[in-house]
Amino acid sequence: MKLATLKAGGRDGTLVVVSRDLSRCVAVPSIAGTLQAALDDWERLAPKLDAVSVGLNAGHLADAFAFDPAACASPLPRAYQWADGSAYINHVELVRKARGATLPPEFHTDPLMYQGGSDCFVGPCDDIIAVTEDWGIDLEAEVAVITGDVPMAASLECCAGAIRLIMLVNDVSLRNLIPAELAKGFGFLQSKPASAFSPVAVTPDELGDAWADGKVHLPLVVAINDTAFGCPNAGVDMTFNFPQLVAHVAKTRALAAGSIIGSGTVSNKQGDLWGSSIDNGGVGYCCLAELRMYETIEGGAAKTGFLKFGDRVRIHMADGQGRSIFGAIDQTVSRLP
Amino acid sequence: MKLATLKAGGRDGTLVVVSRDLSRCVAVPSIAGTLQAALDDWERLAPKLDAVSVGLNAGHLADAFAFDPAACASPLPRAYQWADGSAYINHVELVRKARGATLPPEFHTDPLMYQGGSDCFVGPCDDIIAVTEDWGIDLEAEVAVITGDVPMAASLECCAGAIRLIMLVNDVSLRNLIPAELAKGFGFLQSKPASAFSPVAVTPDELGDAWADGKVHLPLVVAINDTAFGCPNAGVDMTFNFPQLVAHVAKTRALAAGSIIGSGTVSNKQGDLWGSSIDNGGVGYCCLAELRMYETIEGGAAKTGFLKFGDRVRIHMADGQGRSIFGAIDQTVSRLP
Repeated sequence: MKLATLKAGGRDGTLVVVSRDLSRCVAVPSIAGTLQAALDDWERLAPKLDAVSVGLNAGHLADAFAFDPAACASPLPRAYQWADGSAYINHVELVRKARGATLPPEFHTDPLMYQGGSDCFVGPCDDIIAVTEDWGIDLEAEVAVITGDVPMAASLECCAGAIRLIMLVNDVSLRNLIPAELAKGFGFLQSKPASAFSPVAVTPDELGDAWADGKVHLPLVVAINDTAFGCPNAGVDMTFNFPQLVAHVAKTRALAAGSIIGSGTVSNKQGDLWGSSIDNGGVGYCCLAELRMYETIEGGAAKTGFLKFGDRVRIHMADGQGRSIFGAIDQTVSRLP
Repeated sequence: MKLATLKAGGRDGTLVVVSRDLSRCVAVPSIAGTLQAALDDWERLAPKLDAVSVGLNAGHLADAFAFDPAACASPLPRAYQWADGSAYINHVELVRKARGATLPPEFHTDPLMYQGGSDCFVGPCDDIIAVTEDWGIDLEAEVAVITGDVPMAASLECCAGAIRLIMLVNDVSLRNLIPAELAKGFGFLQSKPASAFSPVAVTPDELGDAWADGKVHLPLVVAINDTAFGCPNAGVDMTFNFPQLVAHVAKTRALAAGSIIGSGTVSNKQGDLWGSSIDNGGVGYCCLAELRMYETIEGGAAKTGFLKFGDRVRIHMADGQGRSIFGAIDQTVSRLP
């Protein structure tokens, strides 16, 4: 089953069931007006939504209409929780290597995660808005899950069973604000502006064999200004899978239905730590910072700049037959009016 | 106007208007079923809620009933944002002094804030639940505001005008998990379990002259196991006021209506940095960590332990005539069943 949220209809938008090929959708006001409402009562409502999905995919629903990703909000336009991991340790190792630091051994057993702002997500085709390019605007292409209720101290099995939906995310980072903010010791706040999620969130069964071991085993495809930038496999080098990330959050507190847990920037190690751009035959990157780290390690300084006003970022994922699973995050960087 | 949320009625509970003396309340389903719904449409609904408040305080509402804080959820049982400052620099200075570190000068101009989890707040009279006392369970008594919508890069005036409601909070901290978590560099996650807020949230006008300069100029009263522990004035030594804290969050992103912004642990400097327990004639503390820091500075080691299962924490604030403004946070520490 594939679900999306159209912007029309208020702060939480309007829930629609989307056809597998992303061409058609249908509103389901008699089942749930919003995705949060569906998640709040998932056990009862998911079978009803699934029945709609079956009918839609069979072409049987007369009230279906064309699905337009540009009309979408993020699947949860506002959420009660967004916690983002750094499950791809290569990304963390690289950032540290560029500044001459090594990776603490516990980073392989204790996930690095931060609590993000979840009150104002932007839509998948909305602009990335900033006051100035000087903030060092960067994309971070990731995979994320939406959970049901998770009790405190939940087991990995419980956390795995609580994963309701999967989607993509552009966790925009303001790189030039990060060093001073992290130096204060309390984590990210100003350096993590509004994230955008893929037009569509899907139940794990939609991924077939590509959903295994709590990971999505498919390339995450990133382009900047229509030039291929990255296609690392989200199932490769993911040190902590999604059940482990959920369990990390749940260690000391319960999670409410609708919590979004992210993977962190997808990053493949590819044998060594550098020289893996797509031009060089590698799988490229899911953020500019990583390319800049490679450049720093190789040449002593970063050559590539961060995003400029007018730059366009596209993030999507296709199945084995090249069909888009989630629709594309497709954002342009723009100045605050 | 005073507002509260009864637990009955679903995940977001049921909004009630509460009388000024906290004795009576009335549900307002024809205006707004939940506090979030009221905040989402505040300009239109607040006057209607205020009219109910006037009638209730005049004793004119036949459908009013006894107000029971124990039946309350936090005013927002789940929220889209909880960001907590450390506006009382004395608290930060003390923590640093105990470990031999000084306060960076920019801490006086750049607020220290963290993004907290907001999906699962507990009620004002609910237990503080933990798996083990070894986590180092501590209270943190604070003041918090709930905002309306705030645009990105909002001015201080705009942020001041967006403050809709004021309440108290117990921002529980797991002290023994903090050092390792902060050392990882991404801020608090496991070390900040579910917070609890006061039974009642009030509009700023309810505070009269005590709401001035974006601060609440009244003592915040804390007791542990019915023994007075702290009564520092929340209007004293607050380096950053609430409009400044809201503006800090809004620098790079908009805030959605219903965002909760906290003051951090209230702490008065009282001339020097130590010897200010209530027994010693001082105003005491709003967290055990602060007392332990005083003990460390004075005697080389902390003597007071953190909270134990069965311990009771009470936090409230009274007006100049001794009348409770927000009702009391009254929690007992208990082991996860």
